[in-house]
Amino acid sequence: MWVIGLVISEKNFKKKIAKEIYIYEKSKSNISKIKKLKLSGKIIKSFNDTIPNFDLIIFCTPMSEYKKLILKINSFITSNTIITDIGSSKIESSKIIKKFLKKGINWTRSHPITGSEVSGPEYGKDNMFEDKWCVLIKDKDTNLRHLKYLNSFWKKIGSKTVIMNSEKHDKIFSITSHLPHLVAYNLVKSAQDSEKKLKFNLIKYSAGGLRDFSRIAASNEIMWRDIFFDNKVNITKAIDLFIKNLKSFKKDIVKKNNKSILKKLTQTKKVRTKIIKLKQDIDKPDFGRN
Amino acid sequence: MWVIGLVISEKNFKKKIAKEIYIYEKSKSNISKIKKLKLSGKIIKSFNDTIPNFDLIIFCTPMSEYKKLILKINSFITSNTIITDIGSSKIESSKIIKKFLKKGINWTRSHPITGSEVSGPEYGKDNMFEDKWCVLIKDKDTNLRHLKYLNSFWKKIGSKTVIMNSEKHDKIFSITSHLPHLVAYNLVKSAQDSEKKLKFNLIKYSAGGLRDFSRIAASNEIMWRDIFFDNKVNITKAIDLFIKNLKSFKKDIVKKNNKSILKKLTQTKKVRTKIIKLKQDIDKPDFGRN
Repeated sequence: MWVIGLVISEKNFKKKIAKEIYIYEKSKSNISKIKKLKLSGKIIKSFNDTIPNFDLIIFCTPMSEYKKLILKINSFITSNTIITDIGSSKIESSKIIKKFLKKGINWTRSHPITGSEVSGPEYGKDNMFEDKWCVLIKDKDTNLRHLKYLNSFWKKIGSKTVIMNSEKHDKIFSITSHLPHLVAYNLVKSAQDSEKKLKFNLIKYSAGGLRDFSRIAASNEIMWRDIFFDNKVNITKAIDLFIKNLKSFKKDIVKKNNKSILKKLTQTKKVRTKIIKLKQDIDKPDFGRN
Repeated sequence: MWVIGLVISEKNFKKKIAKEIYIYEKSKSNISKIKKLKLSGKIIKSFNDTIPNFDLIIFCTPMSEYKKLILKINSFITSNTIITDIGSSKIESSKIIKKFLKKGINWTRSHPITGSEVSGPEYGKDNMFEDKWCVLIKDKDTNLRHLKYLNSFWKKIGSKTVIMNSEKHDKIFSITSHLPHLVAYNLVKSAQDSEKKLKFNLIKYSAGGLRDFSRIAASNEIMWRDIFFDNKVNITKAIDLFIKNLKSFKKDIVKKNNKSILKKLTQTKKVRTKIIKLKQDIDKPDFGRN
């Protein structure tokens, strides 16, 4: 979704978190969907008249669009405008923001951990942020007043918030989100290669595992390219660790090392127990969706 | 579930697919669950009197139990007994069966593509097999009468059946099932390693991808050790392909090769479309389960 402005669901609009919502959207198809769905918010085609009145601007675009949009809004924003984004990676994109954003303006970074494999206005959900983590970034140059405002904003729309610096953020999400997505894409790519090579219709029998990865690997390619490029230092480290571990698994399999492989297969269960305890998933088996 | 006998759900029992069901179970805890749940089927403690009357025996144990159980049933079975299993890998386990099963007895192999990350009698489901694939193996030595019987048996309990040889089966499932499970285990292992190294509570933020893999990596470790060992030739080939592709992804990221990475991220979407078309999953975004 290539949107800028205050984007907020119907339910939150009803909570009176925002008096007015404006949407700046590049895609004509998305604009017509927004109109058809009668979502809250006025579509604007330029910032000329509107932007001086904005209290809060949220960038909800792939990170590669930041530069272009910053150059568009620079002449309309003041030091009172609170600016944030929902980007999944912070260190590199902060450099772009610092380089192109007008001096004297603050941009305070957010990362709500929610969403699915689909993008677009039709996939909005009233309870999208409810009980989900939203990470707020506090670096040396963060404006504390804006940070406090955003903390209360995300809480109002239902999120649990946590504050950390960019470095910690990018390391954590390289492991819990970026690597899993890359691995899912890579698994589907490997299945495609095998299908070609073996000339078998493999995909037909994907219910045994591949299916779940294919869902993740259907995520927006522009968004994910930007994340992979932006967080490349941490992601390449994560890839190296992953390959090292996979080679060790392979060695166990080749040598039929019973003790070593059982240790690996048993210890990973502990993470699952922890995830359920932390309410990041439910304790209900998944037999596939009907 | 460490069961041998004819195991069939209440619903199928009502369909009169089986006149009598017998369950041979090693685990005392499972036996008490079966009794508590009042599942169809009599628990037996030995085969002495019962087995000559069996029309069909289904091995529903990890493959490493086959040898021990074959030696137990050998003196009670006749050439009329139809024997099958639900093992996920076929070539190597067929060698064990061939080596230890009494001469003149046929064992016809099945692989129903269903289930979840949990094991045990409490996770049985009436519609477990409905509209799910069941692969039946036809090798040179397969008894065609038994194959025909099993084909109609699996269809009666709701499965779609497909017949292929062991070699093709093991290749297909090394890619669509075994590699995805290994990769999920490996991803969770890598997250654990990172958590230790970084001293951050990563798992708390697993909703962005890791969560879904952790579910798959919580599967039964004995069952999966057996599959990885049994299908080791195909799985090690699959690991090599996966690592080769992951290194190519890494190169794209390091060099910020836009064209090459977008090609990869876009093409994988086609598999998702195919999976939905083949009704292996539904076309509904997954925002996590509540």
